[in-house]
Amino acid sequence: MTRKRILVVNPNSNEAVTQGLRDALECFHNPLGPEVVCRTLAEGPFGVETQEHVESVALPLRRLVEGDNDSAAFIIACYSDPGLHVCREGTSRPVFGIAECGVLTALARADTFGVIAIKSRSIPRHYRYMRQMGLTDRLVSERALEMSVAETASGEGTLARMIEIGGLLKVDGARAIVMGCAGMARHRKPLEDALGVPVIDPTQAAVAMAIGAVATG
Amino acid sequence: MTRKRILVVNPNSNEAVTQGLRDALECFHNPLGPEVVCRTLAEGPFGVETQEHVESVALPLRRLVEGDNDSAAFIIACYSDPGLHVCREGTSRPVFGIAECGVLTALARADTFGVIAIKSRSIPRHYRYMRQMGLTDRLVSERALEMSVAETASGEGTLARMIEIGGLLKVDGARAIVMGCAGMARHRKPLEDALGVPVIDPTQAAVAMAIGAVATG
Amino acid sequence: MTRKRILVVNPNSNEAVTQGLRDALECFHNPLGPEVVCRTLAEGPFGVETQEHVESVALPLRRLVEGDNDSAAFIIACYSDPGLHVCREGTSRPVFGIAECGVLTALARADTFGVIAIKSRSIPRHYRYMRQMGLTDRLVSERALEMSVAETASGEGTLARMIEIGGLLKVDGARAIVMGCAGMARHRKPLEDALGVPVIDPTQAAVAMAIGAVATG
Amino acid sequence: MTRKRILVVNPNSNEAVTQGLRDALECFHNPLGPEVVCRTLAEGPFGVETQEHVESVALPLRRLVEGDNDSAAFIIACYSDPGLHVCREGTSRPVFGIAECGVLTALARADTFGVIAIKSRSIPRHYRYMRQMGLTDRLVSERALEMSVAETASGEGTLARMIEIGGLLKVDGARAIVMGCAGMARHRKPLEDALGVPVIDPTQAAVAMAIGAVATG
Amino acid sequence: MTRKRILVVNPNSNEAVTQGLRDALECFHNPLGPEVVCRTLAEGPFGVETQEHVESVALPLRRLVEGDNDSAAFIIACYSDPGLHVCREGTSRPVFGIAECGVLTALARADTFGVIAIKSRSIPRHYRYMRQMGLTDRLVSERALEMSVAETASGEGTLARMIEIGGLLKVDGARAIVMGCAGMARHRKPLEDALGVPVIDPTQAAVAMAIGAVATG
Amino acid sequence: MTRKRILVVNPNSNEAVTQGLRDALECFHNPLGPEVVCRTLAEGPFGVETQEHVESVALPLRRLVEGDNDSAAFIIACYSDPGLHVCREGTSRPVFGIAECGVLTALARADTFGVIAIKSRSIPRHYRYMRQMGLTDRLVSERALEMSVAETASGEGTLARMIEIGGLLKVDGARAIVMGCAGMARHRKPLEDALGVPVIDPTQAAVAMAIGAVATG
Repeated sequence: MTRKRILVVNPNSNEAVTQGLRDALECFHNPLGPEVVCRTLAEGPFGVETQEHVESVALPLRRLVEGDNDSAAFIIACYSDPGLHVCREGTSRPVFGIAECGVLTALARADTFGVIAIKSRSIPRHYRYMRQMGLTDRLVSERALEMSVAETASGEGTLARMIEIGGLLKVDGARAIVMGCAGMARHRKPLEDALGVPVIDPTQAAVAMAIGAVATG
Repeated sequence: MTRKRILVVNPNSNEAVTQGLRDALECFHNPLGPEVVCRTLAEGPFGVETQEHVESVALPLRRLVEGDNDSAAFIIACYSDPGLHVCREGTSRPVFGIAECGVLTALARADTFGVIAIKSRSIPRHYRYMRQMGLTDRLVSERALEMSVAETASGEGTLARMIEIGGLLKVDGARAIVMGCAGMARHRKPLEDALGVPVIDPTQAAVAMAIGAVATG
Repeated sequence: MTRKRILVVNPNSNEAVTQGLRDALECFHNPLGPEVVCRTLAEGPFGVETQEHVESVALPLRRLVEGDNDSAAFIIACYSDPGLHVCREGTSRPVFGIAECGVLTALARADTFGVIAIKSRSIPRHYRYMRQMGLTDRLVSERALEMSVAETASGEGTLARMIEIGGLLKVDGARAIVMGCAGMARHRKPLEDALGVPVIDPTQAAVAMAIGAVATG
Repeated sequence: MTRKRILVVNPNSNEAVTQGLRDALECFHNPLGPEVVCRTLAEGPFGVETQEHVESVALPLRRLVEGDNDSAAFIIACYSDPGLHVCREGTSRPVFGIAECGVLTALARADTFGVIAIKSRSIPRHYRYMRQMGLTDRLVSERALEMSVAETASGEGTLARMIEIGGLLKVDGARAIVMGCAGMARHRKPLEDALGVPVIDPTQAAVAMAIGAVATG
Repeated sequence: MTRKRILVVNPNSNEAVTQGLRDALECFHNPLGPEVVCRTLAEGPFGVETQEHVESVALPLRRLVEGDNDSAAFIIACYSDPGLHVCREGTSRPVFGIAECGVLTALARADTFGVIAIKSRSIPRHYRYMRQMGLTDRLVSERALEMSVAETASGEGTLARMIEIGGLLKVDGARAIVMGCAGMARHRKPLEDALGVPVIDPTQAAVAMAIGAVATG
Repeated sequence: MTRKRILVVNPNSNEAVTQGLRDALECFHNPLGPEVVCRTLAEGPFGVETQEHVESVALPLRRLVEGDNDSAAFIIACYSDPGLHVCREGTSRPVFGIAECGVLTALARADTFGVIAIKSRSIPRHYRYMRQMGLTDRLVSERALEMSVAETASGEGTLARMIEIGGLLKVDGARAIVMGCAGMARHRKPLEDALGVPVIDPTQAAVAMAIGAVATG
């Protein structure tokens, strides 16, 4: 029997981000379980930072999903869940958005949660989406690092800044933290150790849910 | 390196139910991944049907969790999530409740969901818990089979009745179904096939989340 | 001084629908006020019925808005408000969605409202959007005509069917009705007369709001 | 054909406030459109500042509405919407409250909004009314100028104070501002220019909605 | 030491209703406790059935409260809580509305509740008030007897009709019932016996709360 | 006729706390009314501070209620309402929780309320319970004294600290204060005098509701 495949799509065209996803999902590597494959959306912008970026990848994601007969489940690995509903419309196989999965997984770990965003300009979009999901009752607040994605990915100071912002979220009342970006995974464990509350990487959260869907499906 | 263990506790003392959990979780069996172990709570009542039953297992579950140094994560396998918060208070390891995980996983699959209960007298307790979780916005309704647990486990008619009730939930507007009991798993796939919408077994949902927590932890 | 222009964009490519909008907005014709211009989105599908249709017009609408230096306000005349947020991102001029304006205008007329949809398959999308807008508290229900758009536009039986569905919404508790489609305007007045409660055409509602924004801007 | 009339009633007896309304609504003057007439409620208190003031004008407003056969729509121009429901009970013609219309119009312009009140003692009344309207989900906060109505109307410092308070509302997360008083209209444009987000004068918002109702009615 | 007085005001001018209140509150008669005095508002309409009736008693109630130096607490004995906030503004002594107290007391007895109204035309007003109070989460539904107040007060059939409607509310999911009128008290006990769930008379509920406020004040 | 008895159970085994309840309820002493009897739960922990403490008293409370044929109503005098639902399951007589009654009574006195907790670690548990009760809409915030129960009971500084925290809650917007502990009653009146808003002792609130249930039952 062939292994089932979970396809993780990075909707931006930055291959380094895709490689980061592979690293973050290495922990799920298991030759006897489903295969987790990460892939870059060629049509994507270099980063998904604006509403225009979000919209621009919806239909390319749909076409990717429709054209893929080999994957048992799909994960859209961008914290704005671009194209989630249009992809679901195009297949009966499960399609997961990492923002939704990240938040839902935080809710399985603690009473309340906060979100760390990269930039504050994403926060209104995220709140709008939180309302759409009907998941605001246990959301304490979302706060931004105010760093560029480049800084976040590379910099020494990123973890320190995440600890600072995570600490403010704890003061706000958060008892779990969602990392509001697909590219923060390598900081998950040290951030969790520093804060003393569960820290959720949304792509890892989505993969776990996809493993569940694939195993039982 | 030794495999990490996910302990699934059946809070009732009915060993047949525990065996049913083992069968339902066979799909997660993977010698290279975490070990999923199902165990019966000796102190539990034969079934958890009343609020008194729920309360009676909270502290035994806490003691079980505190006395277990070998498991990396715990799952309380009863759709009332008895003792969830008191167990979390007693350990820094993840503790999952299957009701919470079942609902959260349904929310990752569709806009709206409905719940199939065994008996209608559980529904007020479930609604109270839904309010506590702050997860009512996308709940369409909960409807009961009005069968005994024994009938549910054994009977030929159970699947037919589940299809009937699931159909009513679809008319109510549900686009995913949560099976509101730990012992319905073997009907999941045929029910899903009959209804044409995702059907979530809550214990399977919790195990997937636990696999995620253990893999990344 | 030249007249200010309010541009009403029909995101589908059915010119007959655009002409219907012109007819519906004739009541706002006023040579001393802003000019209301209706135009068809050439890139649109023949009808906007699916999530894919919705997504497909978002970026064409954005480009239309960005390329238009002559209009003082924009109205997206489709009851799914496709591209609303991406268009707002691209201009500081007001952009209105007819679904949002229709609902908000109903809320200015009565305590509760119901929505008449064309097809029931749109209802989950509409409810998801209602949640995103945070406007569900006074929504009683949405019910579908279950007619094709063609039938709705042409048929003799449309008004009778709308009266029937509107009557059910009144029984549900609605005290105002929103017509959940851009193409029902000619039935507004007879439907209102038959039902005895305010009936809101969403495009007309949006034009009134745009007149306010343009007049005071 | 005679022009339809929209009657804007100032429920306080301060004729200067009524004249301010006329000035604020001059932008809607259009001899080919409906006539917007502003009038003072003779029985009103000099200002509507307390709950007692609010209650005192409800029945006089009802009698005014019932005794007026010439107006096609009514606007109650006080940010507490006194008598709104009792006036609606007395006529089948549309009756608009400016608080409701101001908030609804802000919701048509941005994801979130904040309110500028004159005095903090009005804020509990306004929040109570926001709850009644079911429109709190996108309300960020309400903050008070803590000026007297007289100061607000006359003073040089009013705009500066409004910019200061509006800036705090933006920090709170508001992306549109509602001016929570009928007498702030002349500051609308400079406040909007200073803050860079839509600023809504509630009376202007109500007039636009009334124009819509009258045009299509 | 003189006894403290709790003044129960019937805002309609029907002395028979006031006498009914006295009968309903006889159970609180206690010469060593606070005195419960029922009184008719002379200025009230014969019945409070419309929004106009509600508004018409607000200021007379305020004057009554302000002119009364002898009562330690006030109860407005009409299920629309007319004038509640304006009376509170006029005194630092506690003022209770029976609708609010009835609902709050039901919430102290069961997870969910339903309301029996006299006429369906009151239901929108009641729902609006429920939203204002922020107490809708555990409200199941409100249903009307569709009898006249006169029929309700006198008739043989009233109890039977209340049992029928209460039964429907139980089917809806209500586990406590609020009698949505000041004049139903004599049916409370037989209705409770017939339905097998707590039935709350709102005036009795308010008096109990007033006894608490007076005793501890 | 024998007097009806209201049994107030202190679920911790600290007899001094029970005596404090007796003192706090002295104001309800009335030989012609129901008898209010306070009693210590022998099986309780010395204080109820953790979730484990909460769970540990649920079944002992149930047994106490089931074994008591003499009381007409029960009050669980701990601000976590331990065992409330399991006790209700075991009797048809009313069972009140002081947290629920305290909050509901605050809602009968003012638009908004805040809660004073002893320790901040209880606050997440309280918020979770507020969500379960569906009573968060008018909750402004909860703030902790951060004192030990012993300090609270004895110390001179307690009232000063309560005034400080109550003042912060007023700044947050609270217009009534609930004392979030069974042992603060003797500070109720001076705190109310200092803050100028109603202050609710939850046990007194529950006794008043029980008097109502017993009188009318």
